[in-house]
Amino acid sequence: MKDSIIILSGGMDSTTLLYDYQERIALAISFDYGSNHNAKEIPFAKYHCEQLGIKHLVIPLKFMGEYFRSSLLSGDEAIPEGHYASENMKSTVVPFRNGIMLAVATGMAESNDLQYVMMANHGGDHTIYPDCRPEFVDAFDKTAQAGTFNGVRLLSPYCNMTKGQIAARGKELGIDYSKTWSCYRGGDKHCGKCGTCVERKEALADAGIDDPTEYED
Amino acid sequence: MKDSIIILSGGMDSTTLLYDYQERIALAISFDYGSNHNAKEIPFAKYHCEQLGIKHLVIPLKFMGEYFRSSLLSGDEAIPEGHYASENMKSTVVPFRNGIMLAVATGMAESNDLQYVMMANHGGDHTIYPDCRPEFVDAFDKTAQAGTFNGVRLLSPYCNMTKGQIAARGKELGIDYSKTWSCYRGGDKHCGKCGTCVERKEALADAGIDDPTEYED
Repeated sequence: MKDSIIILSGGMDSTTLLYDYQERIALAISFDYGSNHNAKEIPFAKYHCEQLGIKHLVIPLKFMGEYFRSSLLSGDEAIPEGHYASENMKSTVVPFRNGIMLAVATGMAESNDLQYVMMANHGGDHTIYPDCRPEFVDAFDKTAQAGTFNGVRLLSPYCNMTKGQIAARGKELGIDYSKTWSCYRGGDKHCGKCGTCVERKEALADAGIDDPTEYED
Repeated sequence: MKDSIIILSGGMDSTTLLYDYQERIALAISFDYGSNHNAKEIPFAKYHCEQLGIKHLVIPLKFMGEYFRSSLLSGDEAIPEGHYASENMKSTVVPFRNGIMLAVATGMAESNDLQYVMMANHGGDHTIYPDCRPEFVDAFDKTAQAGTFNGVRLLSPYCNMTKGQIAARGKELGIDYSKTWSCYRGGDKHCGKCGTCVERKEALADAGIDDPTEYED
């Protein structure tokens, strides 16, 4: 039964969720908030939706690039190198980004008579991203229920999985991860050095997948 | 101390809140989601911010006019006449509109080191608008706290007041309500017949204010 809308970035996690729950997904939405890597990941989001015959929409949120404070919105030079979970990655947080994307998705769900919003946040996000943590997910779920006539709910099936476990699920599903984008710098190839590239490499290795990514280094 | 951001439509309630809490408000934001009445109310929002020396920004959310289901986004002919609290006004609900505006305001608050988001929802909204009710306000407050580093909070000082009580507060503050907009139809003058016009007339009468509004009828 098609009862859900998914927030789909075109990265590894949400692409895996798309394939994993394809039977329930009526609509996928990507957000363009003006980062360098949006332009690289959204075409992959579109590609996978076409493969699965799922309707895909891109929602422009360009004002975030203009008014929000984040190194992710300040060009590739501003993206720190290092490990995803380290303190210096905090600068890449876009304030309340998931709250904004979930709120739009909730209104879209109600507008389309859909009951669930799906998001692919995971355990590895919790350290630095407050709007990926279980407390946030639970609170937003209650907010969506209270704020809609049909009581929209938030589903976050990967919330307590690692990115490596998600990649292992993608391996079972036969997903081609060369057709996903992670790098926050959003250059021609993945840089291989920023936090999201380091995390991507680790997850693929953990899942025993030969890394199909072309890196700059 | 300037610690707050306000969601300011340019209607009676949020304009009153702006004057009432002007000492604490560092930034006011209005949202243009593509309704007829946005174009009428936003210039009033801007006017009052100029009067008070408060910074004002307009955030475009035009995709809501394109993808969301609501008579408010379908032109003036679609707006029903009658009482604000009646069942047929349900068609004017924009799904999860307050959730979306609050989420953007929360990210803006964190980006600007502000601790509070203010919204002027009131008791008369509760009947038909789920995203104006106390349960929604409480749940969003927890969501904003959980989803931000600085624990942004939601303030909703008029949540249990009637619109008439808000107008009475505005009378004390000396607010000129001729410089506010209510009518959902967004024509040259207030139509005087839609739910928001009926509610406006009642509130001004309840507060003992000579109605300064020019109506079509």
